[in-house]
Amino acid sequence: MLIPELDAAAMVAARDRQATLTKPPGALGRLEDLSIWLAGVQGTCPPRPFERIRAVVIAGDHGVAHDGVSAFPPEVTAQMVANFAAGGAAVNILAAQVGATVRVVDVSVDTPVEAAGSDPRYRVRRGSGRINAEDAMTAEEAVTAFEVGVAIADEEIDAGTDLLVPGEMGIGNTTPSAALVAALLDLEPVEVIGRGTGIDDQRWMVKTAAVRDALRRGRPWVYDPMELLRTIGGPDLAALVGLIARAAERRTPVVLDGVVVCAAALVAEAHAPGVARWTVAGSRSSEPAQRFALESLGLEPLLDLGLRLGEGTGALVAVGLVKAAQATLAEMATFDQAGISDKSGPSG
Amino acid sequence: MLIPELDAAAMVAARDRQATLTKPPGALGRLEDLSIWLAGVQGTCPPRPFERIRAVVIAGDHGVAHDGVSAFPPEVTAQMVANFAAGGAAVNILAAQVGATVRVVDVSVDTPVEAAGSDPRYRVRRGSGRINAEDAMTAEEAVTAFEVGVAIADEEIDAGTDLLVPGEMGIGNTTPSAALVAALLDLEPVEVIGRGTGIDDQRWMVKTAAVRDALRRGRPWVYDPMELLRTIGGPDLAALVGLIARAAERRTPVVLDGVVVCAAALVAEAHAPGVARWTVAGSRSSEPAQRFALESLGLEPLLDLGLRLGEGTGALVAVGLVKAAQATLAEMATFDQAGISDKSGPSG
Repeated sequence: MLIPELDAAAMVAARDRQATLTKPPGALGRLEDLSIWLAGVQGTCPPRPFERIRAVVIAGDHGVAHDGVSAFPPEVTAQMVANFAAGGAAVNILAAQVGATVRVVDVSVDTPVEAAGSDPRYRVRRGSGRINAEDAMTAEEAVTAFEVGVAIADEEIDAGTDLLVPGEMGIGNTTPSAALVAALLDLEPVEVIGRGTGIDDQRWMVKTAAVRDALRRGRPWVYDPMELLRTIGGPDLAALVGLIARAAERRTPVVLDGVVVCAAALVAEAHAPGVARWTVAGSRSSEPAQRFALESLGLEPLLDLGLRLGEGTGALVAVGLVKAAQATLAEMATFDQAGISDKSGPSG
Repeated sequence: MLIPELDAAAMVAARDRQATLTKPPGALGRLEDLSIWLAGVQGTCPPRPFERIRAVVIAGDHGVAHDGVSAFPPEVTAQMVANFAAGGAAVNILAAQVGATVRVVDVSVDTPVEAAGSDPRYRVRRGSGRINAEDAMTAEEAVTAFEVGVAIADEEIDAGTDLLVPGEMGIGNTTPSAALVAALLDLEPVEVIGRGTGIDDQRWMVKTAAVRDALRRGRPWVYDPMELLRTIGGPDLAALVGLIARAAERRTPVVLDGVVVCAAALVAEAHAPGVARWTVAGSRSSEPAQRFALESLGLEPLLDLGLRLGEGTGALVAVGLVKAAQATLAEMATFDQAGISDKSGPSG
């Protein structure tokens, strides 16, 4: 994959336009930076309003969940997927708040048949292997899962999606995410392991040991992202990597969510350098692995509200800010239009 | 003014309801706290969606602006008020993003007649006195301006406003704001003075000297908020104090903006203890006086995006989060409704 550059000319035009708007230069802070990024992403200044904001929730189970790394039992993954379909989850409510729609794809939920409404072609396998003891999947499954993500990105972008919000659901999925981040950034398990859905000290120790054992298995593959996904990732993570990388390849901006999506973004950047420039970080998670991933990607989250739910929720809450950035640059009057006196300050 | 308590029973019910929603306890972070606050504010659980979100921009000029404390000339106040009326300012664009409407009230703009569309009864005077050398206004004007704020709050609340966003416009208005915060919290000028609209070192020194001189005049009145407003505030600030205090008295939640609105909230709290509990801080400003005011009020901003525009913009960007908090608590499915297994963790 060859990741394109942002449109530098559009970004220069956006920066120039910001200076003409009826406000002191820089007074809208990060909203101004965001608006300039959007101009670069869209290749036009001012940037257009978004026409189709889409949250894509990739669902999958994880063998390691049976070792007790989560506060919730594995069957909750399928139950939550049904909750998404019924519109009752946080991701549904928060998507509606910002005018986004939600699609759920069962890539590897551990149920006999794929979730209702999910395309059966995108179901790679039931759950993943216990990454602390065995591979998450076969090499063929890893490629298939990655291509599932690519195919979903293509479908969404072809349908007009101009802002993509990858989300996820899977009991235990913060464990492979932490392992991937630790492997790629050469960190110790204790540095990256957080409390996930809210685990106690006992489960934290189990989770840390699981990541330690996974790292032992994954470290030989740190320079081969697809092999790393095969050994200590999961089909859902591989699909997220494909989804994010393809969106970047096709010039579609991505708002990143919590630790799972950010771990996938880190793998995507390793697989196809330049992906990160097509992304913005929505919310800081309380999971330490997310912080390391974002630092490595050079991203600073827009929000820091103590969110740790995943699903895409942290990104969706930030979408309102992205929309605000677009609207201010596109719709505010200029000093000339408003007939307003320029700054009198000698320093400009 | 007697400021009511929040509804404790509704807050307990909201906390209990949060624990039943289909997510790990606490996983929505500050959105959960906000939702509980909204239940307490509205006196009902779950809280209702907002029906009328209203930004009220109080405009006024400041004599001290003629001393060169701002990067913009004083006539920009009236020009920006016209820009608000034409819908071209940041406050207009950001209000539309969150479904809010904007009202602009000329309380003390330094023009021969009040701004078009502003109620002439609410015009207290032309500009304010140079607070570093003379009173901002007379005692009678201070009372009138405060009552203007009360009257606006009454009009808005009677019209159905259930979320109030006070805003402001006035070249030089961060100077009296910083002086009020320094006086009430016993701080030095250098601690509270920021760069306002973007001033250089020379203007920063002028501004600091102006606050120093204002403080000398205002310090005798630190235990009498109305006298403090008279000596080193301004009609616009007094109106903001009345607006915020009356909203709290009438159980209407307020989203606080930048340094000017927060300075007014600090005065309102001194005037009528308990006001702060009806407020939430929208965005951290780069003005140091705002940080001191919020710390004293016990408020932590929802956003920290480097905004320093005022007008109500920092609060409006945060309104999206307040709406998201309401929606999640009111609309998410419970574990029972979704048929989802409870946490298995022994520690709950």
